[in-house]
Amino acid sequence: MKTHRIALIPGDGIGADVTEASWSVLQKAAGSAGFALEGTEFPWSCAFYKETGAMMPQDGIETLRGFDAILLGAVGWPQQVPDSVSLHGLLLPIRKSFVQYANIRPHRLLPGVQGPLRADAFDILCIRENTEGEYSGAGGRIHQGTANEVAVETSIFTRTGVERILRFAFEQARNRRGKLASVTKSNAQKYSMVFWDEVTHQLAADYPDVEVTSYHIDAMAARMVMAPESLDVVVASNLFGDILTDLGAAIQGGLGFAASANINPDRSAPSMFEPVHGSAPDIAHLGIANPIATIWSGAMMLDHLGETDAAAAIMAAIERTTAGGMGTIPGKDRTEAITATVLAAL
Amino acid sequence: MKTHRIALIPGDGIGADVTEASWSVLQKAAGSAGFALEGTEFPWSCAFYKETGAMMPQDGIETLRGFDAILLGAVGWPQQVPDSVSLHGLLLPIRKSFVQYANIRPHRLLPGVQGPLRADAFDILCIRENTEGEYSGAGGRIHQGTANEVAVETSIFTRTGVERILRFAFEQARNRRGKLASVTKSNAQKYSMVFWDEVTHQLAADYPDVEVTSYHIDAMAARMVMAPESLDVVVASNLFGDILTDLGAAIQGGLGFAASANINPDRSAPSMFEPVHGSAPDIAHLGIANPIATIWSGAMMLDHLGETDAAAAIMAAIERTTAGGMGTIPGKDRTEAITATVLAAL
Ligand SMILES: CC(C)[C@H](C(=O)O)[C@@H](O)C(=O)O
Ligand SMILES: CC(C)[C@H](C(=O)O)[C@@H](O)C(=O)O
Repeated sequence: MKTHRIALIPGDGIGADVTEASWSVLQKAAGSAGFALEGTEFPWSCAFYKETGAMMPQDGIETLRGFDAILLGAVGWPQQVPDSVSLHGLLLPIRKSFVQYANIRPHRLLPGVQGPLRADAFDILCIRENTEGEYSGAGGRIHQGTANEVAVETSIFTRTGVERILRFAFEQARNRRGKLASVTKSNAQKYSMVFWDEVTHQLAADYPDVEVTSYHIDAMAARMVMAPESLDVVVASNLFGDILTDLGAAIQGGLGFAASANINPDRSAPSMFEPVHGSAPDIAHLGIANPIATIWSGAMMLDHLGETDAAAAIMAAIERTTAGGMGTIPGKDRTEAITATVLAAL
Repeated sequence: MKTHRIALIPGDGIGADVTEASWSVLQKAAGSAGFALEGTEFPWSCAFYKETGAMMPQDGIETLRGFDAILLGAVGWPQQVPDSVSLHGLLLPIRKSFVQYANIRPHRLLPGVQGPLRADAFDILCIRENTEGEYSGAGGRIHQGTANEVAVETSIFTRTGVERILRFAFEQARNRRGKLASVTKSNAQKYSMVFWDEVTHQLAADYPDVEVTSYHIDAMAARMVMAPESLDVVVASNLFGDILTDLGAAIQGGLGFAASANINPDRSAPSMFEPVHGSAPDIAHLGIANPIATIWSGAMMLDHLGETDAAAAIMAAIERTTAGGMGTIPGKDRTEAITATVLAAL
């Protein structure tokens, strides 16, 4: 029997609840489809940091490298460990070390979910550059604590980095409705964003079947709210993609429904699947976290592993669940009840 | 009779239409309130650039310095002049040279306007840092055109810059509902944004009557869509404020309703008032631009000049206009008709 080896990192807060929920659904889907998922759990988290002084062991990345994929819950517990430590010690190194340069996030309303917009017929795939740009971590501060203090933060964009994410996005657009929106702010950031626009323009020649349009990030944020149905695939830098995908989560009814995949398209290292939401320490262990985002992320994992039928079965089960009203109202249904309904629908 | 000297810069595209509309309303309001507005028009624009090779004359900034305020329509005509030239040659130098460090943008639904959200009871004042940060213009590119190419863009935040915008925002919050949201991304940008958070925290001690909360930009974008009624004053960096105010424009029904003021709070140089929308070359000279954003911006100008009664009269006239349905549906009513209705309501 085909076996996929999965690293499970529940992380902090509600991460544990939603990972467990997703894992049970994945196991059932695997069983029905006739393949095996072998999970190995890693307790890397803020609690782990408090004990050991590191978010993961020194050889953590090497350990993960042997797996076929990673399923992650959520990282961060700002009251205990500054985000700048926890995220830079676990989540971001995984994305960067494994060259998971494409962060994919689908935004559409599940049946039965009422979003904040009057508009409801949209189906957007956001693709976020995930390894460089505004989150390069380059910068510094001088004259700290004085009136003279200056902080700088440098965005670094490489041709390799920009070209590969754009090619990936062109390919996705080709397999969907053929429309690509490339998001920059070249009227105000004349080095990084003008460069991105140039590369977009150059690559467009290779994808004559894709209609590509450049938008400024401010205009795109407005468009996602005013005319989301006009969008198909949206590609953006690390920061811009980060913002647009939270906005995408909002218009699809909230973070409880927002799934994501951190993909290494070359398959030279494992890809990672995680909900867009964070660890939500305030509701940790109350059993009321919505597991749908993580279950959906699990389906994206199966898709990536080539188990497309099982992935589709999970998506159908999620849709039957929300169509029945279960899990559609934030905070109303318990994690267990939602998971049980998805399992039953599977 | 008290006279305020105003520099008028219609700029490009629909800028001319909306400036003219706003100016006629301002003149009538001044007449009724017993003060004078003396306007001097400057043709600085992309057309001016095509003729002279510069967006404004070399001594443009010095010329403007003598005025009490500037009313600007819109700058930019990307088909003719790259935005990176037109904006860096006119709009941005004015904001920076005159230390208009506070860009203020009110977001609420005018009566009769249906926004894209189901929610309609919100009243947000966004305050955007307007002189430094992500739009510092510092950066460069190497190995241009090769596979090795790298572009960098550096955000520069100074303590002076961060402290003054935050103090300004705390003051505004104090005069409104006492709630301030400070927006950063300190979990991913550990120099600039951690610095901003620190300064926020330090200043909070001086404003015990203001409840200040830090949000990440991604979470704030989602919040503006999911729970806009929870927000009062929102303060953010140049880029983050730029994005949030277009989102604010979207939730208030579109760019036709989004007013803005570029304020020099020390009054050491003139402040500038302009709609959030751009020049919209595609509808230039069709007579269908919505002038409400620019009329509202004009009211903000009068407020800044101390003519608070006349400013309030204009706002009341705008509200009567939209309450009657005029100007509320994008593209439906002509610029002239909307302006005439506001004038009649005044
Ligand atoms: C937690 C944070 C660093 C992360 C990011 O910005 O990448 C998150 O917001 C996300 O969108 O995955
Ligand atoms: C035109 C552009 C440079 C400008 C900005 O980003 O400042 C505009 O988007 C705005 O919001 O005023």
